[in-house]
Amino acid sequence: MSTLIRNAEIIPMTERDRHFRGDILIENGKIAGIGSIDRMADETIDASKMLALPSFVNAHTHSPMVLMRNYKDTCEELMSWLSEIFPIEDKLQDDDIYWGSKLAIAELIQSGCTTFADMYFQSWNTAKAVRETGARAVLGLTLFGDGEETKRRFREFVPRIDAEIGDCDRIRLDAAPHAIYTCTAETYTLAAEWTAAHPGHYLSTHLSETMTEVNDSLRDNKLRPAEYLDSLGIFSVPCYLAHCVHLSEGEAEMISRHSRASIVHNPASNMKLASGIAPIRKYRELGINVALGTDGASSNNNLSMIKDVNLTALLSIVSNMTPSAAKPYDILAMATINGAKALGLEDRIGTLEEGKDADILLINTDDVNMTPLNDPLSATVFAADRKNIDTVFCKGEKLLEHGILTTIDKDEAIARTNECWQDILRR
Amino acid sequence: MSTLIRNAEIIPMTERDRHFRGDILIENGKIAGIGSIDRMADETIDASKMLALPSFVNAHTHSPMVLMRNYKDTCEELMSWLSEIFPIEDKLQDDDIYWGSKLAIAELIQSGCTTFADMYFQSWNTAKAVRETGARAVLGLTLFGDGEETKRRFREFVPRIDAEIGDCDRIRLDAAPHAIYTCTAETYTLAAEWTAAHPGHYLSTHLSETMTEVNDSLRDNKLRPAEYLDSLGIFSVPCYLAHCVHLSEGEAEMISRHSRASIVHNPASNMKLASGIAPIRKYRELGINVALGTDGASSNNNLSMIKDVNLTALLSIVSNMTPSAAKPYDILAMATINGAKALGLEDRIGTLEEGKDADILLINTDDVNMTPLNDPLSATVFAADRKNIDTVFCKGEKLLEHGILTTIDKDEAIARTNECWQDILRR
Repeated sequence: MSTLIRNAEIIPMTERDRHFRGDILIENGKIAGIGSIDRMADETIDASKMLALPSFVNAHTHSPMVLMRNYKDTCEELMSWLSEIFPIEDKLQDDDIYWGSKLAIAELIQSGCTTFADMYFQSWNTAKAVRETGARAVLGLTLFGDGEETKRRFREFVPRIDAEIGDCDRIRLDAAPHAIYTCTAETYTLAAEWTAAHPGHYLSTHLSETMTEVNDSLRDNKLRPAEYLDSLGIFSVPCYLAHCVHLSEGEAEMISRHSRASIVHNPASNMKLASGIAPIRKYRELGINVALGTDGASSNNNLSMIKDVNLTALLSIVSNMTPSAAKPYDILAMATINGAKALGLEDRIGTLEEGKDADILLINTDDVNMTPLNDPLSATVFAADRKNIDTVFCKGEKLLEHGILTTIDKDEAIARTNECWQDILRR
Repeated sequence: MSTLIRNAEIIPMTERDRHFRGDILIENGKIAGIGSIDRMADETIDASKMLALPSFVNAHTHSPMVLMRNYKDTCEELMSWLSEIFPIEDKLQDDDIYWGSKLAIAELIQSGCTTFADMYFQSWNTAKAVRETGARAVLGLTLFGDGEETKRRFREFVPRIDAEIGDCDRIRLDAAPHAIYTCTAETYTLAAEWTAAHPGHYLSTHLSETMTEVNDSLRDNKLRPAEYLDSLGIFSVPCYLAHCVHLSEGEAEMISRHSRASIVHNPASNMKLASGIAPIRKYRELGINVALGTDGASSNNNLSMIKDVNLTALLSIVSNMTPSAAKPYDILAMATINGAKALGLEDRIGTLEEGKDADILLINTDDVNMTPLNDPLSATVFAADRKNIDTVFCKGEKLLEHGILTTIDKDEAIARTNECWQDILRR
């Protein structure tokens, strides 16, 4: 099966501000050619009114939390909100996680995203949903509590998740200690040891999300959160660190010295929970790889990567009081190649290049909000929205076609998720 | 012709956080009933999976500036960007304004908005577009320069715009001196005199958008911008003041003492142009009516009211570092009833109440990003986007039906706007 995307305005994300009119040939799930292609294919897509980009990488989310969307979401800050959410999470069962994950994947695809880094519980259900829907995911084995609990989770859950992943090469399992305020030092150490012992796997965690976390760490550990994790050697393994709203200059420099440590910016969630504005410009200037994540739908309240691309740009400009803080190319890099690098997938996805997997996003420019188009990069970052997301490929498979989900029965996902949620509330 | 919207989740915006399941009857362009309605109508809409709200009021935009969308939009700040835009504006002709306005109206409708306050040139063309499309607008007679030029504009343009408005009661002409850095004191005085002499008409202007404007005013007038306008008596006439990013406490208090002076918040534009974050919470606490505007598409870069509702909420929370700074009801009020009040239209639009004009927005909740719905107000503010905007009425006429524009040929508007823009670039 081959597909020819014909005459698109291509933004390959391989070089600053480069875009050109051309074709993309997809064969066996890979990009077999890009440029001017004089070949027939099994299917040809007229992309003359489309932009073609690498599909987005959501480097931090909690997919099943779509279940708690718009639920008790007017709390005063992260900790009081978590106290509303944790009792709900205790009630979640396999079906809830499965349908929540499936709905979340549908939402991600609709927003141009095919790869996501997840951190949640009972992830065998999420693995099943990813496998069935054709998406790509890095699933965190979420760790909470002490070393004993962590050992139990590795022992019991890893085989169960691995069994669900099977031979699907679009899914990987990472170690995901939740946060320094929910995990012991031993849990972090065990997670880092597991990661070091399993090459190709990463560690992910929440870090320095709120000032409460910083102050509590200073009180309890006499160290700031990143200093504390550094003292445990956590940054020596490949890792991606979500939020990082309140890193000190010294903490950011410390992270910048670890070439396989990335920061994941979560602008919507950080704004909605009044956590603050992460100084991502400073992080980028230090050479840190900064990716983009939506966080969970319960603190966003959606999983729209294209919306968060826009939000990242606007927030970066105003928080630095200069438009140069958010060049469209840099913002798009966060949502594509930087996300791929953060997850260690940059050899396979994140740019449009021959030999990479065909994870491709076509954005429709034939709509009022994209007229006139002028600069395609500006148009993508500042003007486009979910309604313009036309067609999405993951490893050559079409997951969205002219705005319609092809691998997910949308009505079923909506109905089943609603049923699960009503059932949870009754438990 | 009567229409019955059956079984919607209605957010009438008449009382804090109120929402209820019910019906809305539209007759002769007005809301003839709301609640449980046991009547037949010519048309019945099943709204069981819809939220019904007053359609949005965009209280500050420059509709034809869609022409310059994504054009040279990476300038360092407002003044350097304006220096790119002004030469283009000198070349605009009637057709450009007409098609730009029409495309902008299409975009506004798609985002749930039926009423907009415009400030641009050659507005007879915009009046024609509004009349033809069934939308509602308050068109500013834009004033630039000195008293002689202003007198000429009143003399030549008012009859021309009035002729185009004709008997259409959905359009009104206001006086719109552009800004203190482009208009003389005499121009402002003439605009205020005209407004005072024409009851029911308002004055609109840009105010205190950037620190450059503040510093220049302090240098030239020995007064801050709002102090300067107050010294000219401008706030004594009914007025709506766009941006107000950098008002001092004293200036805000001064404006709060004028009951018919409103502030229009333009979050996307203020962020994108690095103008700053307007302290709208403080303004609201002083009792000032704060409305919402998209500003022009060239500094946003779209005209999505539903996007800017979301942005307003997130920005308010993070800039005040407390979620209570952005209760969903307050944010929706800015986009509906406060906008109506700002434009002096609160007797006709802005809430869903019997006797008001039927300006109604139906938001589709049957999509993945609205599942589960939980709190309808949170869902509207934090989760919804343009793809969920299903059906829009203005004065009882359907302008959007299941996402399709009914009074505008979308393809024609896109094609003609593109042609105009290419032609402008060649001039």
